[in-house]
Amino acid sequence: MVSKAQIQFIRSLDRKKERDESGCFIAEGDKIVREILSLPADNPFRIQLLCGLEPWMDENARKPANKPEEVCSVSESELERMSLMKTPNQALAVIHLKDVPPPAFNYSTDLLIGLDKVQDPGNVGTIVRLAEWFGIAGIVASLDSADLFSPKVVQASMGSVFRVKLVQTTLDPFLLSLPGNFPVYATTLSGTSVYDTTLTKNGIILMGNESKGLTTRYLQLATCNLAIPDYALSTKPESLNVSLAAAILCSEFRRR
Amino acid sequence: MVSKAQIQFIRSLDRKKERDESGCFIAEGDKIVREILSLPADNPFRIQLLCGLEPWMDENARKPANKPEEVCSVSESELERMSLMKTPNQALAVIHLKDVPPPAFNYSTDLLIGLDKVQDPGNVGTIVRLAEWFGIAGIVASLDSADLFSPKVVQASMGSVFRVKLVQTTLDPFLLSLPGNFPVYATTLSGTSVYDTTLTKNGIILMGNESKGLTTRYLQLATCNLAIPDYALSTKPESLNVSLAAAILCSEFRRR
Repeated sequence: MVSKAQIQFIRSLDRKKERDESGCFIAEGDKIVREILSLPADNPFRIQLLCGLEPWMDENARKPANKPEEVCSVSESELERMSLMKTPNQALAVIHLKDVPPPAFNYSTDLLIGLDKVQDPGNVGTIVRLAEWFGIAGIVASLDSADLFSPKVVQASMGSVFRVKLVQTTLDPFLLSLPGNFPVYATTLSGTSVYDTTLTKNGIILMGNESKGLTTRYLQLATCNLAIPDYALSTKPESLNVSLAAAILCSEFRRR
Repeated sequence: MVSKAQIQFIRSLDRKKERDESGCFIAEGDKIVREILSLPADNPFRIQLLCGLEPWMDENARKPANKPEEVCSVSESELERMSLMKTPNQALAVIHLKDVPPPAFNYSTDLLIGLDKVQDPGNVGTIVRLAEWFGIAGIVASLDSADLFSPKVVQASMGSVFRVKLVQTTLDPFLLSLPGNFPVYATTLSGTSVYDTTLTKNGIILMGNESKGLTTRYLQLATCNLAIPDYALSTKPESLNVSLAAAILCSEFRRR
């Protein structure tokens, strides 16, 4: 049995302010909740509350590696009332962020992605998922990018938020704090072709806002400005979606 | 002044059945409607009806190259009533498909993308936009893929649906009708690395369903099965989003 106050609390986690105050975020849906339940017991993503339909709970929540502090079997109508999804999908979990340590990077080997005002949570979540595929050690997102633990980012990442190191911070001091020999790659339509540029194993690839691109001072601060050339047949297309651009760049850094 | 019947007709274009019966589709929003108004007069995308807020019409619809058959200035509340978007954006256009000729391809030079049950309209629209960037001559989508002229595909394509040749058909006969020396690339997690494979200038790259991948018989029928290797640091990620995979493959075909 889940209380009215719990339902209200879960729904409130749609808002960044409430996530910040409670230090919790929400993950929804069969697959992603199964994934968080199977994380090893010593992982930092502790589950405060697990809610699920009874048959789902019977099948998936009997002996989870990552044991929730509280467990509730809920009815379909209860799940609907607490869910932030249009079509609730069997289970949801409220997860603590408080034990997640601030990530540490190894600047001599790590490749990172920096997000400057990337505002669409679908794009940000997709980039987190992509980062896992290409062994990108971490994502560093500006404070005015989509919140890395918003429900839509968690969803779009397909669970990769639990496995890629994530930092949300003011980008300027972060970039200034980097070792002098750590390469900073800025992406911009006016950069040199990524296909013709020598790329390093380590570094940070900066991706800019969906419509405005990267803030000018980051282009100046960067070691190298990169572009993905277009091969359009007639009219000049304006730009590539930021997550597609990130995919192409990661592919180029890794294949060599 | 727009009539109640017109509003109903516009809203009905959210459904494939109504689009098929009327031979019309809808494009919404400032940017995309400006784009369709600026297409040359002899382009096949004729505008049946243009609706927009008065200031927008004053600024953008005075002397369009692509002249609409009918023009209506509408109020914000009228636009809200006809719009299929959550936040209507200044203008919408109803566009005829009847004069759009079935695309013809040049199999000795063209690179195509084939979509097998790619069901998310956001993914399909993003792939159309990507296709324009990389000079992909056309998209051939199976009948059980998202409808290429559904409002969400048009939106996600950012207008590229007007510039990339689009075919929606049963994939099997289409593939069987291709010239014997036209390469067919199937994408699958078990293929050979795209980074180590000789790629041709022409051909068709087949992309499969978001969760099930490509239908098995297409893997057998293909000249070559391609995979994008992962570089994950620890756990094996399940798959890449289909539009990201398409982006990486197009980049590989074009850069060489």
